[in-house]
Amino acid sequence: MRTTVGIIGAGPSGLLLARLLHRAGIDCVVLESRDRAYAEQRQRAGILEQGTVDALRACGAGARLDREGLIHHGIELRFEGRRHRIDFPTATGGRSVAVYAQTELVKDLIALQLGENGEAGPPLLFGAEALAVEKPDSAAPEIRFRHEGRERTLVCQVVAGCDGFHGIARRAVPAERVRTFERTYPYSWLGVLADVPPSCEELIYARHQRGFALHSMRSPHVSRLYLQVDNGTDPAEWSHERIWDELSVRLGADGARPLERGPISAVSVTPMRSFVQEPMRHGSLFLAGDAAHIVPPTGAKGLNLAVSDVLTLARALVQHHRTGSTELLDGYSETCLRRVWQAERFSFFMTDTLHPRPDQSPFEDRLQVAQLDRIATSATASAELAENYVGLPLS
Amino acid sequence: MRTTVGIIGAGPSGLLLARLLHRAGIDCVVLESRDRAYAEQRQRAGILEQGTVDALRACGAGARLDREGLIHHGIELRFEGRRHRIDFPTATGGRSVAVYAQTELVKDLIALQLGENGEAGPPLLFGAEALAVEKPDSAAPEIRFRHEGRERTLVCQVVAGCDGFHGIARRAVPAERVRTFERTYPYSWLGVLADVPPSCEELIYARHQRGFALHSMRSPHVSRLYLQVDNGTDPAEWSHERIWDELSVRLGADGARPLERGPISAVSVTPMRSFVQEPMRHGSLFLAGDAAHIVPPTGAKGLNLAVSDVLTLARALVQHHRTGSTELLDGYSETCLRRVWQAERFSFFMTDTLHPRPDQSPFEDRLQVAQLDRIATSATASAELAENYVGLPLS
Repeated sequence: MRTTVGIIGAGPSGLLLARLLHRAGIDCVVLESRDRAYAEQRQRAGILEQGTVDALRACGAGARLDREGLIHHGIELRFEGRRHRIDFPTATGGRSVAVYAQTELVKDLIALQLGENGEAGPPLLFGAEALAVEKPDSAAPEIRFRHEGRERTLVCQVVAGCDGFHGIARRAVPAERVRTFERTYPYSWLGVLADVPPSCEELIYARHQRGFALHSMRSPHVSRLYLQVDNGTDPAEWSHERIWDELSVRLGADGARPLERGPISAVSVTPMRSFVQEPMRHGSLFLAGDAAHIVPPTGAKGLNLAVSDVLTLARALVQHHRTGSTELLDGYSETCLRRVWQAERFSFFMTDTLHPRPDQSPFEDRLQVAQLDRIATSATASAELAENYVGLPLS
Repeated sequence: MRTTVGIIGAGPSGLLLARLLHRAGIDCVVLESRDRAYAEQRQRAGILEQGTVDALRACGAGARLDREGLIHHGIELRFEGRRHRIDFPTATGGRSVAVYAQTELVKDLIALQLGENGEAGPPLLFGAEALAVEKPDSAAPEIRFRHEGRERTLVCQVVAGCDGFHGIARRAVPAERVRTFERTYPYSWLGVLADVPPSCEELIYARHQRGFALHSMRSPHVSRLYLQVDNGTDPAEWSHERIWDELSVRLGADGARPLERGPISAVSVTPMRSFVQEPMRHGSLFLAGDAAHIVPPTGAKGLNLAVSDVLTLARALVQHHRTGSTELLDGYSETCLRRVWQAERFSFFMTDTLHPRPDQSPFEDRLQVAQLDRIATSATASAELAENYVGLPLS
């Protein structure tokens, strides 16, 4: 099997890349280790930056997002029983974000690629487990993969590693050519999906002495809620009643609407990690999205960063395809990493400001509150948060 | 001996408070444990916020400051060999800072109080060592002190503890009424006074992989330079040549003027600490400046914070004197602490962003650079630094 660009992974990065390449007339094949049902069910992010929405629209993947996505013009911070709303358009000259679950976006992109609403896109193989990237630094790299019980090889000109943090792509770069940067956090998120209308139209980020809480939503009928918990927490320790009680306490604030309770359909615990692998290119292998970097979810940056990597990679591949120039391909890693490190910085800032650490000193408690106070009382500090939240400009 | 306000300490806080009270017709006495020569030589801060300059002018203590102080309209950040200037007036709607050594300000205030240029102020006793504050929670607190070999008592209505972090005033509050907040840092500053014109007209804050460096000045002829060093460093380990070599490396940047060398007149090592004692009032005892809080010097906030405490205290005492109302006195601690915690936050931010810690991870290295990058590329992030640096509004 041969193609121009072999794409490992049918998450948002791989699917969007395939769509952009296909529209530019560049051959590609997408290999996804799981089956379609699994790929369409993975619960992930839900906040799309304006630039992400624009990119999806531009490649014809924005129709349902435009119908069903919820445009959010702000978020609310809660701390010390106080409430402070940040208005994005005011703080950023008119920008906003959209709430649209990653699972829905993946469904849209899969349907498009399989041609369920029109012309089919490039091949997309489910149950195709990438085993290794061979000769990544040559002009003819190969993806060895297992599909329908046999081992096969996809010979490419370029391999795009879009297979996430646990994928094989980033491990194909020789250790001596790699620098990794990592931080783990002394807490996790207990995430809850509940069949109840959100109790607030916008997201609420709450810093409480007992821990962080986030009130979010997937749709007008489904709430997505999070609680900071200790690492190693067993979701079974948390009865539904305990979850609602704790959410009510942490999200409580003067004059706030009480939290609406409802049936909980899923509970999971996710650890928090920051991770970057540099460079994001090795020869003909290009890493994009979680394959190259992870952020804790507090800043809602993971999916958006994957999209900006993919836009950068697609532009570079199209330039090379049309003109033979490798200029943008050569700059790929550096271009992406500038934005990646800004997102890492912002995600760390949001996480570190809103989560009391288990071993935190009283001085650090006060600093967190002082930082939130500053944001609540200064248009400049508020704008600095808002600009990062709605997304820094794509480069 | 009796007075209305007994002031412990003839640093900038105590002297400024005495001046403000005297002008409002309120009796006070200042006790200073050291002699005049020592008090006038203590090397301390040198950056005055606009609000501090305004307050000194308003009480007639700004004449020499206006003649000799250097108005600074910006600072320069250096990192990764790059240079970025922050223009304060642009970022803050016209505000700036003044460079004027604390020692000079203390000389001015002492000369005024002793009446060397006109009418004398309230009594100022040098060599008067405060031993204890008795009955601080009564309406007639007393300062027990030693002067000219004998122990004496100053009976007051109010005691102002302006005697710094190592003073006795803050220890007069019963332990069960106090909450302290503290952070020590895993590095110190080696400070150098050099008889050489500054190599740059503005301050340079440099984050180098080898450590932080600061290029500052006391006058057009005297440079004040700092190097981050390990805790416990013996100044004797640092020859003058080594100091200049290290400063040159850390302050080096593309297109930067080389560092001018000259005779070094003083070398000292200062540890870095953040500290707050809450509340800042106990009965009739009011703490101001370093007696209640310490910041690391990176944000140039210590002296300015002392001045804002004193302005708040003077206003409250004047209100009480004129109207009998205790409203402002009752709000003193809370009013001051709001501003104190913002200064603590900013000082921590500047310190933590510019100093690589000895045990710092590569991830944290990158975050520091990303933060500086953000400031260098965003008007909003730059304004957030500038607003804090020139000083938040006095409340």
